Amino acid sequence: MPAPPKDSALRTPFKTVALVGRYSTAGIEGPLEEIASYILRNGQDVVFERETALATGLTSYPALSAEEIGREADVAVVLGGDGTLLGLARQLAGHDVPLIGVNHGRLGFMTDIALEDAHTVLPDMLDGRYEAETRLLLESRVVRDEMDIFSALALNDVVVNRSGISGMVELAVSVDGFFMYNQRSDGLIVSTATGSTAYALSAGGPILHPTLSGVVLVPIAPHALSNRPIVLPHDAEVTIEVASARDASVNFDMQSLTSLLPGDRIVVRRSEKTINLLHPVGYNYYATLRKKLHWHEYPSEDNRL
Amino acid sequence: MPAPPKDSALRTPFKTVALVGRYSTAGIEGPLEEIASYILRNGQDVVFERETALATGLTSYPALSAEEIGREADVAVVLGGDGTLLGLARQLAGHDVPLIGVNHGRLGFMTDIALEDAHTVLPDMLDGRYEAETRLLLESRVVRDEMDIFSALALNDVVVNRSGISGMVELAVSVDGFFMYNQRSDGLIVSTATGSTAYALSAGGPILHPTLSGVVLVPIAPHALSNRPIVLPHDAEVTIEVASARDASVNFDMQSLTSLLPGDRIVVRRSEKTINLLHPVGYNYYATLRKKLHWHEYPSEDNRL
Amino acid sequence: MPAPPKDSALRTPFKTVALVGRYSTAGIEGPLEEIASYILRNGQDVVFERETALATGLTSYPALSAEEIGREADVAVVLGGDGTLLGLARQLAGHDVPLIGVNHGRLGFMTDIALEDAHTVLPDMLDGRYEAETRLLLESRVVRDEMDIFSALALNDVVVNRSGISGMVELAVSVDGFFMYNQRSDGLIVSTATGSTAYALSAGGPILHPTLSGVVLVPIAPHALSNRPIVLPHDAEVTIEVASARDASVNFDMQSLTSLLPGDRIVVRRSEKTINLLHPVGYNYYATLRKKLHWHEYPSEDNRL
Amino acid sequence: MPAPPKDSALRTPFKTVALVGRYSTAGIEGPLEEIASYILRNGQDVVFERETALATGLTSYPALSAEEIGREADVAVVLGGDGTLLGLARQLAGHDVPLIGVNHGRLGFMTDIALEDAHTVLPDMLDGRYEAETRLLLESRVVRDEMDIFSALALNDVVVNRSGISGMVELAVSVDGFFMYNQRSDGLIVSTATGSTAYALSAGGPILHPTLSGVVLVPIAPHALSNRPIVLPHDAEVTIEVASARDASVNFDMQSLTSLLPGDRIVVRRSEKTINLLHPVGYNYYATLRKKLHWHEYPSEDNRL
Repeated sequence: MPAPPKDSALRTPFKTVALVGRYSTAGIEGPLEEIASYILRNGQDVVFERETALATGLTSYPALSAEEIGREADVAVVLGGDGTLLGLARQLAGHDVPLIGVNHGRLGFMTDIALEDAHTVLPDMLDGRYEAETRLLLESRVVRDEMDIFSALALNDVVVNRSGISGMVELAVSVDGFFMYNQRSDGLIVSTATGSTAYALSAGGPILHPTLSGVVLVPIAPHALSNRPIVLPHDAEVTIEVASARDASVNFDMQSLTSLLPGDRIVVRRSEKTINLLHPVGYNYYATLRKKLHWHEYPSEDNRL
Repeated sequence: MPAPPKDSALRTPFKTVALVGRYSTAGIEGPLEEIASYILRNGQDVVFERETALATGLTSYPALSAEEIGREADVAVVLGGDGTLLGLARQLAGHDVPLIGVNHGRLGFMTDIALEDAHTVLPDMLDGRYEAETRLLLESRVVRDEMDIFSALALNDVVVNRSGISGMVELAVSVDGFFMYNQRSDGLIVSTATGSTAYALSAGGPILHPTLSGVVLVPIAPHALSNRPIVLPHDAEVTIEVASARDASVNFDMQSLTSLLPGDRIVVRRSEKTINLLHPVGYNYYATLRKKLHWHEYPSEDNRL
Repeated sequence: MPAPPKDSALRTPFKTVALVGRYSTAGIEGPLEEIASYILRNGQDVVFERETALATGLTSYPALSAEEIGREADVAVVLGGDGTLLGLARQLAGHDVPLIGVNHGRLGFMTDIALEDAHTVLPDMLDGRYEAETRLLLESRVVRDEMDIFSALALNDVVVNRSGISGMVELAVSVDGFFMYNQRSDGLIVSTATGSTAYALSAGGPILHPTLSGVVLVPIAPHALSNRPIVLPHDAEVTIEVASARDASVNFDMQSLTSLLPGDRIVVRRSEKTINLLHPVGYNYYATLRKKLHWHEYPSEDNRL
Repeated sequence: MPAPPKDSALRTPFKTVALVGRYSTAGIEGPLEEIASYILRNGQDVVFERETALATGLTSYPALSAEEIGREADVAVVLGGDGTLLGLARQLAGHDVPLIGVNHGRLGFMTDIALEDAHTVLPDMLDGRYEAETRLLLESRVVRDEMDIFSALALNDVVVNRSGISGMVELAVSVDGFFMYNQRSDGLIVSTATGSTAYALSAGGPILHPTLSGVVLVPIAPHALSNRPIVLPHDAEVTIEVASARDASVNFDMQSLTSLLPGDRIVVRRSEKTINLLHPVGYNYYATLRKKLHWHEYPSEDNRL
């Protein structure tokens, strides 16, 4: 009794398709070339992301930078893992280029199409039969002495944490100008729904459904056992001040990184930019969760023992 | 640097104030009578909830049923704990009567005004200086053989659980018609933001900010360690089917209760009715959390040891 | 580089082998009969547990009660799940009859021999090549008005819990006469190492290695977030007094059960009786954990994303 | 009905008492001098730890190094927090000098005597009325290319973890030569009972009673949700191999630290050295837990709400 998908009417077919691959993976050029050829046969134009083209030697297609893809492509197909898609998504944020994720190796939360299904699924989606989903991005500023010294976007999470050699960080956390607490811990994760199944989950956070409009703060190994994860509305502005730390840093989707000093403030809020993910018609988020988290699909025959 | 409260303009003063007390508590009549007298002096009319009036002997004021309060009062002041407020809120749901909570004994999440502050805070609020907050309610149906056999509202949570003498329940959970999983556990909590600091927190759930528009599913002692809490959008419809259980039941805000049979389905969704809570101007949700959860307010002088 | 097993010298072969099966499982008579026949061929005598013989129709072997097996058999082979083994173990406690577990369907923590391997593994073990492991048992008394009203053994756990229709239990817990705390929760589990991978794990408890000499107290959904599991020495005497509860009960290995009244005390301590489990030479507890808990065996090729 | 303390017979009074203080704390010289004077009046000799004497200017007493205290003192009194005691304990390990902890500021797990009680409690203990408790120490070696490159003792814990700028560590963990798992996480804590209420607790570990003979492995934010804490017997040898990490390190009681390379192995086992802690007669470990963890001492008057 699956409900009718919410947003899956037939749309205008895409014209120009950008292909991006996790080019560090050996043997990815074969599958990429195959995808390119059946997209061509399906009547779309194919361009390659430049780094992917160079690394794989697939140079018979036009090669574009992420910036150029943002301007010229209508949709991007990513072959790899969630990390590959995440990296591209941050580059394309603000451009109107939706993303389709094909996993190479292992089912991802966002790269949810199996490579072996791609030859039937992709042409259909590129012809306009898909479900679209909007994911929010976080924009963060690092403020030192009342000056912005760094800013970055994140699709998964913003993480303030101690380094390996310091004992703990102490963070003074405020939300919308209201002081929340002084938290002593290994660090604090501000995660989107997208990131809630990544690092935040390991640190004890809840899963946030992708359509939930909120962010979650997840403390990492907090000193106070009652410092539990707290889910905030999407429009909350979270300010994390480094109250004390021998050595702390902040990262954005585990990528860009800045060292922090006591007194630094990291201000995190929802970005006006968003990401669009496309899924095959009939896409079921829970099927992905079940598979990735080893949830039970069938009634049990055995008891707890 | 507290931010300006979002919703605290001066409004029309209230005219008729209903007083409700946790009448099972010895010695509550004194404080209740004192509150009544300074509300009168402040120029409002005072009515008492009937059970409160009878139990305390405070019979010189008009005594109304909850139903009558819903029709005739402009605001209700509750003296007691969160449980007292919760009980009244379910009765007043759908009526346009906001609630003010004064705690008798111990700070509550909703009964957030200290009794000793009430004589200055209440007159001010009743004159129209307050912040208003809307809390959502869950409406649930129990379906057996395709017939609704029970329905109830809940402000905190809907809990399906095993009885003390059965081993486990197995629940097949779906959201918006999409199958999620077969969950073997002691039970499953569907909680609002309001309920997220009650039973759901004990069972490992996250805190949901009251203004977050969502509900959270929290499994109780799940067999599968990856059956983590999941936060869903406010408009999700959750269906819990009893796949197998020697003895299971469902309760609503820990109150009304129904025994369940295998095959029974509990359908939970957001009610169209809501509850309005009023807080003093400058109200800070995080201050309540800090106090109730022993969070750190001040920077530490000591390290983890 | 596996270490040499600690206790695996060649011992005297067993003479009389008792066979016990989870007779409620359809089709178990075939495998049972096969096991019986190759044990016979291996030179041992075979007897059947009476209920197993009756339920499966395998009546050409001597059929003995558990009590008689305790007196007359040298070893018992259990075919089924951990629950089957658990039930037999409690009956054989105090007799000097070690247990060998063969799983029918799904790897168990104690029924750790795969059915398809049993024809090579069992004869070898019955000939004296095995590793032996001692598991402790808990003995519990329920004391009402200073009189023992019930007592039972448990190999996994003793669980005091609320019923499905009561709100919470409040338990006053003491260890060795020292008051520990008043705990408000859904209940409290006193678990052995054996039970630590069963219900206690679902409730948030740690895994205790089978050779660890200790028991663990695991609160179920405790009101106080700092009521964490606590591991006690094996000789600790735990007293749980029902301080208040609308409806509480205690069970032993999820089996025998007694309703409790406020004031009742459950006194749990290590029994002088133990259980001996036999494993094939080279047995690796961690291999079982890895398989049952989906732990990673091989280095990863992908990152957290 | 408290049970009689197990080990509190009257013993030989101590003769030479070493005094050690957390000398970084302003104003500690007054209390230290007061303690010294009433120990003198009680008939014992007083010596000061050298750093303490220098930092506080309390130079009228003999000043000894930790090494000299180990040889010449009969007992050491520590004034400060658990961290101060921990530091001294590691220095005195192997010497037969028991420790008494007096807390300056805040109750500690080991510095369990309140400063205001010390003038009555200490003389009594120094005269031979105390309860003694043995705490185990971990000894660790870091092995690189089959050579030991570092070794250290720890009373609390050995922690292998990622640095702040690396994504995750991957650790191959073995116990007694048996492979356990490849764990991807922020790190792994090997903790004694003493350390179980420190960092290990923040990371989700259980509390181990000080008399429990065991150690606990607590993963920090593990990728696999089923990588739960596991309690091992005291004689287990744990080997942690750095399978991969951009940047990892190991520390011992959060103090000495070594950077690690892929392939490095950290071998942790129980040291033959132990620490003796002395407590006042009637000492109750659970009273400390209750106070430090905000556990409930008295029956509740309110319900979960």
